[in-house]
Amino acid sequence: MHHEQFYTLTASCPDRVGIIARVSGFIAGLGGWILESSYHSDNDEQRYFMRMEIRAASLSCDAAGFRRQFAALAQELAMDWQLTDSAVKKRVVILVSKQEHCLYDLLARWQAKELDIEIPCVISNHETFRGFVEWHGIPFHHVPVTADNKPAAYAAISRLFEAARGDCMVLARYMQIIPPELCAALPGRILNIHHSFLPSFVGARPYHQAYQRGVKLIGATCHFVTPELDQGPIIEQDVIRIDHSDSVADMVRYGKDIEKAVLARGLRYFLEDRVLLHGNKTVVFR
Amino acid sequence: MHHEQFYTLTASCPDRVGIIARVSGFIAGLGGWILESSYHSDNDEQRYFMRMEIRAASLSCDAAGFRRQFAALAQELAMDWQLTDSAVKKRVVILVSKQEHCLYDLLARWQAKELDIEIPCVISNHETFRGFVEWHGIPFHHVPVTADNKPAAYAAISRLFEAARGDCMVLARYMQIIPPELCAALPGRILNIHHSFLPSFVGARPYHQAYQRGVKLIGATCHFVTPELDQGPIIEQDVIRIDHSDSVADMVRYGKDIEKAVLARGLRYFLEDRVLLHGNKTVVFR
Amino acid sequence: MHHEQFYTLTASCPDRVGIIARVSGFIAGLGGWILESSYHSDNDEQRYFMRMEIRAASLSCDAAGFRRQFAALAQELAMDWQLTDSAVKKRVVILVSKQEHCLYDLLARWQAKELDIEIPCVISNHETFRGFVEWHGIPFHHVPVTADNKPAAYAAISRLFEAARGDCMVLARYMQIIPPELCAALPGRILNIHHSFLPSFVGARPYHQAYQRGVKLIGATCHFVTPELDQGPIIEQDVIRIDHSDSVADMVRYGKDIEKAVLARGLRYFLEDRVLLHGNKTVVFR
Amino acid sequence: MHHEQFYTLTASCPDRVGIIARVSGFIAGLGGWILESSYHSDNDEQRYFMRMEIRAASLSCDAAGFRRQFAALAQELAMDWQLTDSAVKKRVVILVSKQEHCLYDLLARWQAKELDIEIPCVISNHETFRGFVEWHGIPFHHVPVTADNKPAAYAAISRLFEAARGDCMVLARYMQIIPPELCAALPGRILNIHHSFLPSFVGARPYHQAYQRGVKLIGATCHFVTPELDQGPIIEQDVIRIDHSDSVADMVRYGKDIEKAVLARGLRYFLEDRVLLHGNKTVVFR
Repeated sequence: MHHEQFYTLTASCPDRVGIIARVSGFIAGLGGWILESSYHSDNDEQRYFMRMEIRAASLSCDAAGFRRQFAALAQELAMDWQLTDSAVKKRVVILVSKQEHCLYDLLARWQAKELDIEIPCVISNHETFRGFVEWHGIPFHHVPVTADNKPAAYAAISRLFEAARGDCMVLARYMQIIPPELCAALPGRILNIHHSFLPSFVGARPYHQAYQRGVKLIGATCHFVTPELDQGPIIEQDVIRIDHSDSVADMVRYGKDIEKAVLARGLRYFLEDRVLLHGNKTVVFR
Repeated sequence: MHHEQFYTLTASCPDRVGIIARVSGFIAGLGGWILESSYHSDNDEQRYFMRMEIRAASLSCDAAGFRRQFAALAQELAMDWQLTDSAVKKRVVILVSKQEHCLYDLLARWQAKELDIEIPCVISNHETFRGFVEWHGIPFHHVPVTADNKPAAYAAISRLFEAARGDCMVLARYMQIIPPELCAALPGRILNIHHSFLPSFVGARPYHQAYQRGVKLIGATCHFVTPELDQGPIIEQDVIRIDHSDSVADMVRYGKDIEKAVLARGLRYFLEDRVLLHGNKTVVFR
Repeated sequence: MHHEQFYTLTASCPDRVGIIARVSGFIAGLGGWILESSYHSDNDEQRYFMRMEIRAASLSCDAAGFRRQFAALAQELAMDWQLTDSAVKKRVVILVSKQEHCLYDLLARWQAKELDIEIPCVISNHETFRGFVEWHGIPFHHVPVTADNKPAAYAAISRLFEAARGDCMVLARYMQIIPPELCAALPGRILNIHHSFLPSFVGARPYHQAYQRGVKLIGATCHFVTPELDQGPIIEQDVIRIDHSDSVADMVRYGKDIEKAVLARGLRYFLEDRVLLHGNKTVVFR
Repeated sequence: MHHEQFYTLTASCPDRVGIIARVSGFIAGLGGWILESSYHSDNDEQRYFMRMEIRAASLSCDAAGFRRQFAALAQELAMDWQLTDSAVKKRVVILVSKQEHCLYDLLARWQAKELDIEIPCVISNHETFRGFVEWHGIPFHHVPVTADNKPAAYAAISRLFEAARGDCMVLARYMQIIPPELCAALPGRILNIHHSFLPSFVGARPYHQAYQRGVKLIGATCHFVTPELDQGPIIEQDVIRIDHSDSVADMVRYGKDIEKAVLARGLRYFLEDRVLLHGNKTVVFR
């Protein structure tokens, strides 16, 4: 967390000798002061991942200039890469149903500028939180979802997301299944919080499943949404201890605490460009 | 967590043979169905602690009748005791300064009835959260505290607390030191969240202290407020992992997550009559 | 953990009014001083569970006398119950293969009397730990298990267990599947440590499964062995954080730490009569 | 954890533009394949820390050649640095008193080659573990320490450590205070496990202190030993939950589990050259 402007370069490419040397040499050639850097070699798949934060004021060019000059090196190294600018706030569209815990938690972090983002709008299939959201000065859109109107509803949601120029969509306990086409249209950009420690208890009513099985810990999982339900790349997980005296209702209550904490951490990693996709897994440079 | 009305009996007394037998015999004599019960013998100090939840509908008398009949047995066993009624909501007065995280967290729980309490008012030494609190329909009182007006300010706070018929006062990151007289007037009724794992880093700026010492975990402590700063009985604590890359600002941010979680847990234990005082320590029947 | 002799009464029965009163009244009638007591009502299934530690010296009878007198009350309440004596050490037969971590951990605890048990023998399908075990003065039996000799091998193990008068059998990373007949013959008496956070990653090579799925925490589960592989009642679980940089070999290494800790805790709960079976779940009075 | 030979380069120096570029360029110039790399900028103190693992077979020179050629660059960058070779096992001298848990744990890891080290000897002020240590084929030295013989005793320990060509000394619950001269002679090479979550409960009987204060978590701290008791740089810490029902004896028992786990983790970080000193703090590249 830095107070001055910086660029974040993230990249992955086939592993070989000299990648760091080439990239850091390039940056040094532009006078770039590196604030933070992380690397990972997947030695099984011979793939290399990196993330570097570079002080903007130290560079002899701006972000556009950096991108232009870096492109040739990136092509030579066969890199997937991006450069983001800390001065450009990410735009996060929140989808919510009737549970309040994740929404309150995210808005508290936004209100305190702990999450330094724009929230162009909140979308919900219920009216429950209109007043709360609008009190914060954030537009609220009610898009009902019924058995009959799903294609139309998700078309509406897509249009709202586009109109909002959203960088990502956060399902903050949004109790509807996102259709495969929308998942496919926004790969690595829809984050969900699932109320179990995946891969345990996929699907509906995971706390009931946990209660039946008699587990001694329950958990939550923040993951990217993909067309396969609850199968997307995992970003963050955590658990909390329960015991025989806890009913399903108790688990639901404990679960909320872990859900909002895991979602907030996963979202922060994403917003800080710390999450790189690697097939159906993630590299998270915390 | 039960959906039907119940009474909670808590008690402590010198330990001896037959206490459970006497108390549970008394309850059975009234037809009482025990939903949950917990006991603790402090074998060093020969003191006995108990907590029982009794289904109201199973009893042949009401709460007043129970109290009247139980008094004789309690006196014989030299008990400190109380009986509370789940149908009577506790009244929690919240004090807050400029940090939002605990306040948002508590109001989210209250709004969802996860905390089934009355919040008669929020008191603050700043105007920051007036709009947010009032939007929830809760009265907000601004009581400025300066170097010069402390006696008058705390007299005002005491009057507000009395007028609100508060059961307890929660310092939700209230950045002022409560004067000894007020602490003494409300023993075991003022809960604070301290932003360190006590007894480490007592007093001001604990995250700066933690940073200087190079600890690998930081924590938070929910405790009763007593006249000695940060020395009161501890109700709940927890920690979170940090490392060398975390600045003080990072610690403050991580710390907020653990502070609000620990305060919420400690307050819940208190509200459910799970916390019994034992000198400068607590028995917490979770 | 008490230094004087005590009896532990554990029981479960259909729930009704007055159970604690009857049982604690019975104990008080014998002069019994209760050191620790725990109760649980399963309000869904209306079943009641209890555990009480009673100071032996306070009673007007010995364990046999207690059992004789208590039987009538237990029958009236339709109780499953037992009374154990802290002066009678439990006899724990350990089964092990080639991994050392759980075995070293258990023998360290036994050697320090932290686990106050008898280990009449260690049985293994390999000779690896003969020297180590025998150095501790504990008999070691090598029972090879091959694709062809399973019935004979498990018959031998059963005979060794009987000859040892074992109270329980601990599979301390014993890499063989116990045949259903042996599971059925010792219900609630065979403890296993599974190297995943069940129900995730049932069966073989759970760390490989975890690596493929990209989870962010791995775990271990101590459970009773039943004829259905990895489906028995769970006694204790825990997890440890991993990240993208951890290979399967790293997970195996981290996993060992959590496996031995979870096994030791689960075994301790069992040995202290803190684990009551409740269908395919457990009540654990920690 | 790699199976092939590698060198580990660790370094710290004043921060400036281009350090990674210079160092990684140097390594690339020798053909070096980087298996793992970590960097940290202390932006307050403008100091830079790095750790790189380089595949030995990829280099055009051996370790001596690398060191010779790297020296000029290191001097230019004013680096404190070292290069270690995974093929050269570190030599760990263990000091122990009468508690077994850390010793058993370390020898189990050594025996399984999970800790790939040499243990040239174990030194103790008691004879308790002679048989156990010698059974493992490790020399055992009994050096009694009394109020009268301290200078002679520690002179003997120093001679044993030198004769053993020890890389580090591990105090595995060695219940004696190391004299300041010995601490000063081996800076950053003596690791201790303290049985509290420092800075809470410095000095003797920390569990008694924790019991008196009524904390809800207890912990352990692995730190470098310096002349100031329990004030050295912290390498690793962890905690475990307790409650009102736990006696000091229970805490001691729980504490052992956390002590051995924290010591093992801290020692591993040290042995893998993941711990860099930074004043009275550590950078730990996990």
